[in-house]
Amino acid sequence: MCKTLCHGSRNNKMGTFVHSTSGAAVEILQNCVLGVDDQGKIAFIENDRDEESLSKLWGFGASDIKQLGQHEFLMPGMVDTHIHASQYSYTGTALDLPLLEWLNTYTFPVEAKYKDLEFANNVYTKVVRRTLKNGTTTACYFATIHTDASLLLGELADKFGQRALVGKVCMDCNSAVPQYKESSSEFKPVVTPRFAPSCSSSLLSELGEIANNNKLHIQSHISENKGEVELVKTLFPGCKSYTDVYLKHKLLTDRTVMAHGCHLTDEELEIFHETGSAISHCPNSNISICSGMLNVRNVLNHKVKLGLGTDVAAGYSPSMLDAMRRTLDTSKALTIQDPQHKTLSFEEVFRLATLGGSEALSLDDQIGNFVVGKDFDALRVNVCVPEGPIDLFPGEAVFCSMTCYTSKII
Amino acid sequence: MCKTLCHGSRNNKMGTFVHSTSGAAVEILQNCVLGVDDQGKIAFIENDRDEESLSKLWGFGASDIKQLGQHEFLMPGMVDTHIHASQYSYTGTALDLPLLEWLNTYTFPVEAKYKDLEFANNVYTKVVRRTLKNGTTTACYFATIHTDASLLLGELADKFGQRALVGKVCMDCNSAVPQYKESSSEFKPVVTPRFAPSCSSSLLSELGEIANNNKLHIQSHISENKGEVELVKTLFPGCKSYTDVYLKHKLLTDRTVMAHGCHLTDEELEIFHETGSAISHCPNSNISICSGMLNVRNVLNHKVKLGLGTDVAAGYSPSMLDAMRRTLDTSKALTIQDPQHKTLSFEEVFRLATLGGSEALSLDDQIGNFVVGKDFDALRVNVCVPEGPIDLFPGEAVFCSMTCYTSKII
Ligand SMILES: [Zn+2]
Ligand SMILES: [Zn+2]
Repeated sequence: MCKTLCHGSRNNKMGTFVHSTSGAAVEILQNCVLGVDDQGKIAFIENDRDEESLSKLWGFGASDIKQLGQHEFLMPGMVDTHIHASQYSYTGTALDLPLLEWLNTYTFPVEAKYKDLEFANNVYTKVVRRTLKNGTTTACYFATIHTDASLLLGELADKFGQRALVGKVCMDCNSAVPQYKESSSEFKPVVTPRFAPSCSSSLLSELGEIANNNKLHIQSHISENKGEVELVKTLFPGCKSYTDVYLKHKLLTDRTVMAHGCHLTDEELEIFHETGSAISHCPNSNISICSGMLNVRNVLNHKVKLGLGTDVAAGYSPSMLDAMRRTLDTSKALTIQDPQHKTLSFEEVFRLATLGGSEALSLDDQIGNFVVGKDFDALRVNVCVPEGPIDLFPGEAVFCSMTCYTSKII
Repeated sequence: MCKTLCHGSRNNKMGTFVHSTSGAAVEILQNCVLGVDDQGKIAFIENDRDEESLSKLWGFGASDIKQLGQHEFLMPGMVDTHIHASQYSYTGTALDLPLLEWLNTYTFPVEAKYKDLEFANNVYTKVVRRTLKNGTTTACYFATIHTDASLLLGELADKFGQRALVGKVCMDCNSAVPQYKESSSEFKPVVTPRFAPSCSSSLLSELGEIANNNKLHIQSHISENKGEVELVKTLFPGCKSYTDVYLKHKLLTDRTVMAHGCHLTDEELEIFHETGSAISHCPNSNISICSGMLNVRNVLNHKVKLGLGTDVAAGYSPSMLDAMRRTLDTSKALTIQDPQHKTLSFEEVFRLATLGGSEALSLDDQIGNFVVGKDFDALRVNVCVPEGPIDLFPGEAVFCSMTCYTSKII
């Protein structure tokens, strides 16, 4: 399997690696060597006392290993399972309305501007660079209804080195901005129905069919706020639940990720479990536009795949560290309401932002943690940079520093 | 009043100033000149079209004015009304226990170390520099029971240029760490009873008397979590409420600031209003150790003075921007629970972090906003620094940028 390791590959690392596994929310591998083959895949992870035999076996010299510093560690790149690239231009503003009004007032008028490729190029360049800078190596993007601009987003992600799933948004109903919807005849097969209220049943069916025939990823929104849930009941009177709308249109597969799900019932979660569909939890967004609070513990108890998302711009931060912190906050707010609620731990949240995200996007065969055969997709974190955001104190070990990384940064 | 303006004072500013007044949560003064006298006080604030007559009146030349850049503005320095300097060494860790266990397990053992002045010097230097870097120009600190270390904290704040209220903590009861309490005989008159459960009635009385005789500030904690409220009922069976404990010991004055107050009743808030005592709202802390959610709207409706606090280290962030964001989050979480709840606006939260904080510390005659006669205590904010945390887009005006300042920074 590892025969592709380059002789003299200089991408091997030695030091501390922090990641998650199915058994351990956080596993810390100290004094290890991680080998990277010439395809960029992880060839081995071994204790550094075996360095000599490893170097013989794999044909590399001491100078081919990059030694991490005392205050450094590697962690898997973070996975943003839900972000609207096109909304980045108004991040941090316009958070004073609930979902349905927010869409019509702020979102649809801005998204209509992406007909202009120059406008798109400016915003998409910034969002890709910003999220990369924040440690998002994989992002699942909503673009707009514009094919050219959506392709451009994909090209920009490629250019800057981010793994991106890009969805051209499909919608043909219920936009209060008349110029911002598409007719079915313009339809291009990118499987991103905006959400049920924006799509006719025939559009949803068409999308479901295309996705299944081509084994494509599917992304959409579900059960974000209560008004929306009621609206869907009215629009799809033949369906038992919001989840049933997507199920009936064959949009719930093991390649599906649905954002939010704040108000899903246990029966609906059961359907997610059975179909292998995932939920993207976007706590900043849910709090910022007062949508609701997802009980992540309950989702995990139903064995539903779950990753974290920033949901820019209903979420005001493009940072996955923020998504981790807000996930903890929401879980703690639920504990304040009900002391019996089992609060998520820091370690669990770390796993959701990395391995959980890769599972939610059905990319866990490629990324998410440090396992032989997966891509080497990592962040090199130094908790002790000059003028950095963290003050270290005597006795703080690397794990402590790693813990602090999410909470000390300000 | 403004006769002290230095001829040739070079501290005058021209540009955009953003602050709060009693009438406007956010007021934006564009194209203004702000004069600073040689005592560091604000001499005038006028429109810049009057620059010539101003310069004649006040005797300064064009070169004595510092022109702010296009993407810059001045805002008042932020006021952290509640921060435990001594707990900064474990910020971002140890957030897995509720208050009373958290104190005994993590806090008291660490605070006992401040007998060692070298240890104290290291941590106190870092906390003062870090909070200044985050824009906190005024901080109301809890130190520890150690007089020397508490004096050192005051000296360090002075050295680095931060306005600090420093409280040597007073406590004589209920510490599970036997070496970390003091006997009354060692008592020094700094008016910081830790909180009712840590203090005997005689210690509280003594502190109340000293504070009143010397017109000193008073700080403590109140009604942070439900277990604590129950404990206080048991410890002070003769008092009607937690608030009544402090009231009876003459610790509620118009120079008092009490942290938290999550579980205060309307009757207790009425006592705060009548005595002129203030509340320090510490939302990060309240969420992080699952204490409760303060209904700030209800406090404001009772016309009780209220500022924001980081409450390091039960709050994991030393940044007042974080305190502003968490204040909004908590208010939005309350709206999610009860849609009738009137959510705080961004503007109101900005006022709480500046003018509100100055009122809570009874320093609003000196700081809090840009008013002639107050100290010139300001942050110069540039939202467009290279490699900075904010991406700007065409058409974003300074006010928009200012709004973004709290929400775009990641
Ligand atoms: Zn979304
Ligand atoms: Zn405190």
